[in-house]
Amino acid sequence: MQVGFIGLGRMGSGIAGNLLKAGHEVTVYNRTRAKAEPLAAQGAKVADSPAAACKGDAVFTMLADDAAVEGVVHGEDGVLAGLAQDAIHISSSTISVALSKRLAAAHAKAGQRYIAAPVFGRPDAAAAGKLFVVAAGSADAVQTAAPLFEAMGQRTFVVSQTPDAANLVKLSGNFLIASVIESLGEAMALVGKAGVDKHQYVDILTSTLFGAPVYKTYGGLIADAAFEPAGFAAPLGLKDMRLTLAAAEDLRVPLPIASLLRDRFLTLLAQGGDKLDWSAIGGLAAKDAGENPD
Amino acid sequence: MQVGFIGLGRMGSGIAGNLLKAGHEVTVYNRTRAKAEPLAAQGAKVADSPAAACKGDAVFTMLADDAAVEGVVHGEDGVLAGLAQDAIHISSSTISVALSKRLAAAHAKAGQRYIAAPVFGRPDAAAAGKLFVVAAGSADAVQTAAPLFEAMGQRTFVVSQTPDAANLVKLSGNFLIASVIESLGEAMALVGKAGVDKHQYVDILTSTLFGAPVYKTYGGLIADAAFEPAGFAAPLGLKDMRLTLAAAEDLRVPLPIASLLRDRFLTLLAQGGDKLDWSAIGGLAAKDAGENPD
Amino acid sequence: MQVGFIGLGRMGSGIAGNLLKAGHEVTVYNRTRAKAEPLAAQGAKVADSPAAACKGDAVFTMLADDAAVEGVVHGEDGVLAGLAQDAIHISSSTISVALSKRLAAAHAKAGQRYIAAPVFGRPDAAAAGKLFVVAAGSADAVQTAAPLFEAMGQRTFVVSQTPDAANLVKLSGNFLIASVIESLGEAMALVGKAGVDKHQYVDILTSTLFGAPVYKTYGGLIADAAFEPAGFAAPLGLKDMRLTLAAAEDLRVPLPIASLLRDRFLTLLAQGGDKLDWSAIGGLAAKDAGENPD
Amino acid sequence: MQVGFIGLGRMGSGIAGNLLKAGHEVTVYNRTRAKAEPLAAQGAKVADSPAAACKGDAVFTMLADDAAVEGVVHGEDGVLAGLAQDAIHISSSTISVALSKRLAAAHAKAGQRYIAAPVFGRPDAAAAGKLFVVAAGSADAVQTAAPLFEAMGQRTFVVSQTPDAANLVKLSGNFLIASVIESLGEAMALVGKAGVDKHQYVDILTSTLFGAPVYKTYGGLIADAAFEPAGFAAPLGLKDMRLTLAAAEDLRVPLPIASLLRDRFLTLLAQGGDKLDWSAIGGLAAKDAGENPD
Repeated sequence: MQVGFIGLGRMGSGIAGNLLKAGHEVTVYNRTRAKAEPLAAQGAKVADSPAAACKGDAVFTMLADDAAVEGVVHGEDGVLAGLAQDAIHISSSTISVALSKRLAAAHAKAGQRYIAAPVFGRPDAAAAGKLFVVAAGSADAVQTAAPLFEAMGQRTFVVSQTPDAANLVKLSGNFLIASVIESLGEAMALVGKAGVDKHQYVDILTSTLFGAPVYKTYGGLIADAAFEPAGFAAPLGLKDMRLTLAAAEDLRVPLPIASLLRDRFLTLLAQGGDKLDWSAIGGLAAKDAGENPD
Repeated sequence: MQVGFIGLGRMGSGIAGNLLKAGHEVTVYNRTRAKAEPLAAQGAKVADSPAAACKGDAVFTMLADDAAVEGVVHGEDGVLAGLAQDAIHISSSTISVALSKRLAAAHAKAGQRYIAAPVFGRPDAAAAGKLFVVAAGSADAVQTAAPLFEAMGQRTFVVSQTPDAANLVKLSGNFLIASVIESLGEAMALVGKAGVDKHQYVDILTSTLFGAPVYKTYGGLIADAAFEPAGFAAPLGLKDMRLTLAAAEDLRVPLPIASLLRDRFLTLLAQGGDKLDWSAIGGLAAKDAGENPD
Repeated sequence: MQVGFIGLGRMGSGIAGNLLKAGHEVTVYNRTRAKAEPLAAQGAKVADSPAAACKGDAVFTMLADDAAVEGVVHGEDGVLAGLAQDAIHISSSTISVALSKRLAAAHAKAGQRYIAAPVFGRPDAAAAGKLFVVAAGSADAVQTAAPLFEAMGQRTFVVSQTPDAANLVKLSGNFLIASVIESLGEAMALVGKAGVDKHQYVDILTSTLFGAPVYKTYGGLIADAAFEPAGFAAPLGLKDMRLTLAAAEDLRVPLPIASLLRDRFLTLLAQGGDKLDWSAIGGLAAKDAGENPD
Repeated sequence: MQVGFIGLGRMGSGIAGNLLKAGHEVTVYNRTRAKAEPLAAQGAKVADSPAAACKGDAVFTMLADDAAVEGVVHGEDGVLAGLAQDAIHISSSTISVALSKRLAAAHAKAGQRYIAAPVFGRPDAAAAGKLFVVAAGSADAVQTAAPLFEAMGQRTFVVSQTPDAANLVKLSGNFLIASVIESLGEAMALVGKAGVDKHQYVDILTSTLFGAPVYKTYGGLIADAAFEPAGFAAPLGLKDMRLTLAAAEDLRVPLPIASLLRDRFLTLLAQGGDKLDWSAIGGLAAKDAGENPD
């Protein structure tokens, strides 16, 4: 297939590389052109504008947030202007449900197709083609895009014909991770104040009922109070809680733990935590409990 | 070793059976004597009182709650009266930190030793000798009891020389499970109201970051709204949140998620949920969101 | 003074009437022109567009929400287009802090002045000229507008030279009222389930420490479960919590009670409460506690 | 009437003084006898034991907490031993609902009568005979005690024939005060960070909808961050939240704001606030928001 790819951060570069390896013709675009060079060396064409990356059957966007996506979609050189009739915009960014709805409407009006296909997995999984793809869109569009999803991930979950449902699933996943961080933070503040070694505690948890990567990763970070450098920065955590709560408000679903998490992120940022990893909210319970920072 | 065992529910019977298989001489006691018969058939002696089960090197108690433990410990026929000097009371029940402190003091005064050794695992793991034992007590007592722990579990974690630290670790584990139930309940209310299939959603979670037994088990129960019959009844969930919060109050550790969980259990019970499984709190978010029960 | 008035709901009509009585020349505008007639009978001129109401020294806007205010401000016939250099836009609507910031910037750019002047008080206080005005803006603008504030209210509080600070004070006031409703709802669910008469309970509270109008009004509504018809509808309560939380997020101030209140409003609306008074969140605690509705 | 009075702190001394002034024969007892002397000078007899103060028609207890009350009730020299048949124990202390239930049962078994009659008001109101009395007990007992209540307060509210209902009303009142402190603390953290003067803000609130003593008193303390010396110490605030939540748990009433308040008090105490006034929880929101202490 002929496919464009807009957004060559660590996630996007990994995915675009795998699309190339699978034999697709890939045209890439990135605001900072230098990031396109490694892919050009692997055979990608480099476009001068978002629209110029939209000449094929489909175009991916993999960008930081709503504003970045809207920045490449609209305008003379944007995706909406560049994409052919029936061609597909595959949005893999973690964006708001509201923006995903607006994109679906805009592409429908322009006679184009739109799939939301956010992913679970970190940059190393993207590079290895081991992502999990959560896709939603019309059955025909998803079928057309299937070979692309196969190239980038180990498994594709099609969750709905309504694209924004996939964005909601992605956001809810980040909400659940943050829930694990907070509950671990509380439990570790408790047993830690009673003198239990926090590393041993994480070992107990992950050896028994909580043997998931998320407990190992975040339990370790909290036990070490190792919140720098940020793998996923605290302001992004706040953003995802905000987007989750906004989507939940539109659907009229109260989420008390998400509300609590939002307050935790605000506390963290108000106290200077902008550069910390989002797991630093897992240190707030100990701080409230009067534990002295090491 | 010569060892007594008081409390032959599903957990206790499994553990006592494995002590027998490992070659220990076991004297069992249960208020309802009929429950002792299968173990008698495997070679256990049957005692007529708690004290009569305390004639060996150690005695286990594995009972429902604080009141049940206090009921067998005190009085003429109780554990304190029956246990020899230096013999060990191994308390494996999920009891309060406060009671564990009182037991430690009472046994010390009586010249006896005391270990708290609650376990992680369900009745099938108890029967198979696959429990995880979380033990705390004096180094000499724990060393003496080590062969017993080996017979009953796959791994022993010694977390402290202060016995009640083990009770706190156990309680905190149940707090973390309840946190998973609540956060899953919120996430599933959210994506469910957007039309995503709840079983598929659980499949996505457990295939990606949340591949722990606790997510599979409780995600499935919430997706099916299958809260009867109770594996672990809602009033026991409330009890464990209460014990966790009481221990946290003594240590002065605020636990906002535990507070929220306590309120959830109260809501569930106030609305008639006494006979439901504790995972039924995972259905409250959907109810708040106006979802019709099936 | 020559002054325009846009938005002739119950609050706006009362205020405009008092401006007339105080001798000011008032030109009114309302989308539904019929509402302007009683004021015309009192001597007001009636304008055909927002811009046409902006020919004097100042123009008030008193509208339902952000969208309504933006609707009259922008465009060819809008306030920005109609207002003279140095003339003042006095915004008395309960709007978002973010919109107030944008209005301040837009008027500054157009060489006009801008005051935020939301009010405390109900329609009867507006009609009687007994409102409390919370004003913020440049000292010269506030001084110019002082005779207008005197005509409409019993007291003016100038809280800042930054207009949006006044909007924040207004929103925080609604947050505090909702806090009273929720805490009263919890307390009354508690004593009510113990058999105490709820009306007598409100009488005790208001006779002792809580002798403020807000306790009398809302305590009575909760005791009677009299949530229809709505004096201030539940969706407006949710809106004000949302605006409060959004402003707090920008300032990085966590507000756990506001988060809880937002969840309460969502629960109320998810269960069909759109037409209820916002005090109906005060009935949720009793519902959670299993109290049967009368 | 002949009446005993046990507990001569600031509240008790004021009440006992007014009983004397009203012409009743009063026998007082206090652990520290020196506190009885001013009352002896006014005509009171001084007893050597709690039982010795129980020889009349009724005896009041006005003590710090459950333990103090239980300390004077039980034992050879206690109230239960000293009180005649049909004589009345009037318990005015702020105690737990559970203890009040136990006292009711114990006095019934002993053929004595029991009224719970906690009060609203501070020591100056006690001295002036201006308390509000919240009484519950059998109709005949309350009728007998009516002249005593008249002597000590400006108004008596009889809320139930079940004594502990009065204790619950008293606890719920302290819960509502703490709710005001927390919500004011949040609102003032918010407007304060936006640059609004906190004293002016309190003035606005108390001039408009929130003109109750509780807003004036606590708003001023929070604006000044004047949390020392303690009028009512933070550990007592935690105790009252604990008693409120315990009573609510027995009645199965979830109280999310009370849960939040309990966490606030724990945070305050964990960070060294034992000697602060309970209004210091009203400073935590500003601290979370990163405001520097003065």
